[in-house]
Amino acid sequence: MTKILIVGGVAGGASAAARARRLSEDAEIIMFERGPFVSFANCGLPYHIGGDITDRSKLLLQTPESFLARFNVDVRVMNEVTKINRADKSVTIKNLLDGTEYTESYDFLLLSPGAAPFIPQISGIDNPLTHSLRNIPDMDRIIQTIQMNKPEHATVVGGGFIGLEMMEAFHQLGIKTTLIEMADQVMTPVDKEMAGFAHAEIKSHGIDLRLGSALEVVDYIPNDHVADKNAGESHEHQHLQGSLELTLNNGDKLNTDILIMAIGVRPETKLAQEAGLQLGELGGIYTNDAMQTSDPYIYAVGDAIEDRDFVTGKAGFVPLAGPANRQGRMAADNMLGRQETYQGTQGTAIVKIFDLAVASVGKNEKVLKREGIAYEKVYVHTASHAGYYPGAEIVSLKMLFSPETGKILGAQAAGKDGVDKRIDVLAVAQRAGMTVEQLQHLELTYAPPYGSAKDVINQAAFVANNIIKGDSTPIHYDEINNLNEDQLLLDVRNPGELENVGFIEGAINIPVDQLRHRMSELPKDKEIVIYCQVGLRGNVAYRQLVNSGFKARNLIGGYRTYKFAQA
Amino acid sequence: MTKILIVGGVAGGASAAARARRLSEDAEIIMFERGPFVSFANCGLPYHIGGDITDRSKLLLQTPESFLARFNVDVRVMNEVTKINRADKSVTIKNLLDGTEYTESYDFLLLSPGAAPFIPQISGIDNPLTHSLRNIPDMDRIIQTIQMNKPEHATVVGGGFIGLEMMEAFHQLGIKTTLIEMADQVMTPVDKEMAGFAHAEIKSHGIDLRLGSALEVVDYIPNDHVADKNAGESHEHQHLQGSLELTLNNGDKLNTDILIMAIGVRPETKLAQEAGLQLGELGGIYTNDAMQTSDPYIYAVGDAIEDRDFVTGKAGFVPLAGPANRQGRMAADNMLGRQETYQGTQGTAIVKIFDLAVASVGKNEKVLKREGIAYEKVYVHTASHAGYYPGAEIVSLKMLFSPETGKILGAQAAGKDGVDKRIDVLAVAQRAGMTVEQLQHLELTYAPPYGSAKDVINQAAFVANNIIKGDSTPIHYDEINNLNEDQLLLDVRNPGELENVGFIEGAINIPVDQLRHRMSELPKDKEIVIYCQVGLRGNVAYRQLVNSGFKARNLIGGYRTYKFAQA
Repeated sequence: MTKILIVGGVAGGASAAARARRLSEDAEIIMFERGPFVSFANCGLPYHIGGDITDRSKLLLQTPESFLARFNVDVRVMNEVTKINRADKSVTIKNLLDGTEYTESYDFLLLSPGAAPFIPQISGIDNPLTHSLRNIPDMDRIIQTIQMNKPEHATVVGGGFIGLEMMEAFHQLGIKTTLIEMADQVMTPVDKEMAGFAHAEIKSHGIDLRLGSALEVVDYIPNDHVADKNAGESHEHQHLQGSLELTLNNGDKLNTDILIMAIGVRPETKLAQEAGLQLGELGGIYTNDAMQTSDPYIYAVGDAIEDRDFVTGKAGFVPLAGPANRQGRMAADNMLGRQETYQGTQGTAIVKIFDLAVASVGKNEKVLKREGIAYEKVYVHTASHAGYYPGAEIVSLKMLFSPETGKILGAQAAGKDGVDKRIDVLAVAQRAGMTVEQLQHLELTYAPPYGSAKDVINQAAFVANNIIKGDSTPIHYDEINNLNEDQLLLDVRNPGELENVGFIEGAINIPVDQLRHRMSELPKDKEIVIYCQVGLRGNVAYRQLVNSGFKARNLIGGYRTYKFAQA
Repeated sequence: MTKILIVGGVAGGASAAARARRLSEDAEIIMFERGPFVSFANCGLPYHIGGDITDRSKLLLQTPESFLARFNVDVRVMNEVTKINRADKSVTIKNLLDGTEYTESYDFLLLSPGAAPFIPQISGIDNPLTHSLRNIPDMDRIIQTIQMNKPEHATVVGGGFIGLEMMEAFHQLGIKTTLIEMADQVMTPVDKEMAGFAHAEIKSHGIDLRLGSALEVVDYIPNDHVADKNAGESHEHQHLQGSLELTLNNGDKLNTDILIMAIGVRPETKLAQEAGLQLGELGGIYTNDAMQTSDPYIYAVGDAIEDRDFVTGKAGFVPLAGPANRQGRMAADNMLGRQETYQGTQGTAIVKIFDLAVASVGKNEKVLKREGIAYEKVYVHTASHAGYYPGAEIVSLKMLFSPETGKILGAQAAGKDGVDKRIDVLAVAQRAGMTVEQLQHLELTYAPPYGSAKDVINQAAFVANNIIKGDSTPIHYDEINNLNEDQLLLDVRNPGELENVGFIEGAINIPVDQLRHRMSELPKDKEIVIYCQVGLRGNVAYRQLVNSGFKARNLIGGYRTYKFAQA
């Protein structure tokens, strides 16, 4: 009879417990959770705060009782594993309710402790109006502050997943919101020009977005406003718990009524570290592809570990639910004698920002540059389904690929419809090792309500292959402002578009449909830098010019990419 | 200077013309279209009839003028190519406006004539109220009949894409509708049990669905109702054009006011055949993977040709827009000296049926059986995104795979959200040659509004791998009604579910969460056939029983698959 102890009862831990039981009816399985809840929907927390998920109990996917009934797992909440005694294969547990300590032996131990919000050492940060969001009690505290303090203004520090979702939650509650982000963009998994779509969406909802800003000082101002007892139903604003004055690194001051710190998470490695388990270079728990730590009787999964990056093969830290769940399942397999190996993490991710979805997979351009990996890139902006059928939205897609092998290095997309689908398609293609040449042949579902005969992905593949085959000489949005005297900027859109959506200073305008008859207006000794709205007409113009003996380049992704890069 | 003639100005032909011009500025390109329109949105026609696409001009993607301006293509509408003179590499063209004939020579000829609706020889079928739908004039005639005859009742014959879309169009116009289909299911690309979801959706909208029925006789009853001149604005029903009496093969009679014949299409091969070009065994034009016919100077693409099936490698006839467009592009490449090869057709397809999407890729079970290809299958019914976030709908997925290689043979899905995405994911995986083992590792976008940490596809892969590894002994819905005396049917759902959604006669009920303590109620000498709602709890129960020494099988896809198979 195998005895398995599991530290942490969410995602990876819960998946492992259920899988272990399915594999073995007689294994003894004990799951320790220092918090009061197991297997809760941590990705749903911001949506309950914002009111999308009205019923709190929907976030509690399993209870200790349901785990016992269905999986015969002994779930011990409010029980914290404080020490791993590797020599005798046991752990020490503290019962947080009565303070008692006890030990349990194991044949196999699974660590799934997760990652904790990182709270920087900022003066005044410890105050009753400042929160982070990791679990149900955190959520309850935030809701309580909202109910008690009735904030008119909220501040979120950190433009990652949780920060963006909390920003939207506050906005949805009718609370004015400031989002502070130290970098020059939100959503670091995507590159800055793609984050521009997010920036535009955020600003369009009246959010006070402050990029390149850091919080330096927090001053807590307790409430000195005595509630008017006669106010009655007038809901006079009271701020029962007071308010905060924030000072940013640029000297700006900001008054706010609730503060959420969401700048990132750090793997919970204390237990592993104290037990002498090997850590990776990024500070997470080291595991091999079997999810085994440096101690073969101890496995680890989820946000606390470093996993192997699918593209680079290097160690990465990707705290996401999907990998955690699959790793948990796999660790259970291996503890019970199977031979499963983890196939690396692509980091596929998506976030909803108001009506916009922003998603990514694989490596972004920033990382590729940093790691010195050769890449080329394309941008397309294509309707999510047939443009003539109602409801089509533009999918803005960036695809990064190896100019040598044609393999997909990464992709990013933003839009109001069909973004998840396109990144999923590329996530599968990347995992399968497909090249952009092969992407041209993808046969995706098409009917007018769902797609196009030439899907976004086919289009991106066509553009990529044109570059690879030398049928297109690209120029990118970040080169447009640095043209030299031997280059001439040509806008091939219709004059009405220039008026309505703007244009790039210094461009001359010849609509593509007139170009064939007006080529004589262009010099043959200069390089014609062509752009249109999204790059398609630009390519038609490019081919005309090049096939007529001109030197030319086409702005990949067109004016739309150029414009949103500045948002 | 290369001279390219193109026969047919939609999809494949139009794609080829545009691509050819991008590759060569000096090629002479002439496109002949015997109809009045080129490059129209043929997939959008039913949606204009039904009113979703209100603006008819949106269906006209290009005009001869726009083609000339942008691509310098000489587009000749109302010009029918009547003969190919291979010996001198020329074609004979009839100008349908003035009846004159002329010839044009070619270096390369591209045939993209499409496929025509097949109208069976039914007595009385030639009448002013019977239509098929292929192009803009067909659509205009149908709209005119609707406007003139003000049908109270419409009949559609054929439950394929066009038939289903026309059924919905009529329903949307408030017209009572009968759908007649000779087979025992609509949507032949999916198997009957998956078509059950479509049948339920169709019936739930009050459509008179008649499966296994064929139209035998049509009687046209001209109008004998003299319009009341005083009716004025009362819109008294008039049937200006009369009505039809339909007789079905079972003797049923049916009165209807408009009849759409949509039982399928036949490739237009007359021109090719008369020119002595090789046809395939299915009757389409033969091409090699370069899209070249048996005459190396003549290429052919789209609905008129047979293409190579991706799974079987055999010739297939798949009249869909996606392959047509890509083939057109590729034919242009090859006519202008490139070396592109078509990579086979998976037949990825989707149709919207009211709120439901039904989609498929690859081979279905009917075909696999017929071709003697070994397969196993799984069904899952999984939420389109996190169940606790509003708007989640069940995706019902069937996946067929090779039990030997694990490769994906085909997939089918039905549901109100996220069906296109899941079939796209499997279309990519199939094209990439991935196995169901690899599908487990797919890392798809997950945030509560978009997916789940373990997506539909991961779930299907888990179930498939459980079967392959012997962790699960499946039983399928079509075996349940033929259990023998040595088998015992066990329903592991909660009693409330049995009451609310029904159950299978003869089953005993032990909820999964009680099973561990009630195993003694079950016999060890019989095979326990377990089912739950979708198969997940059934698997938990299965593992408990098998690990406790029972013989058992689990109904894959659960009661939901069983029930909809009968819809």
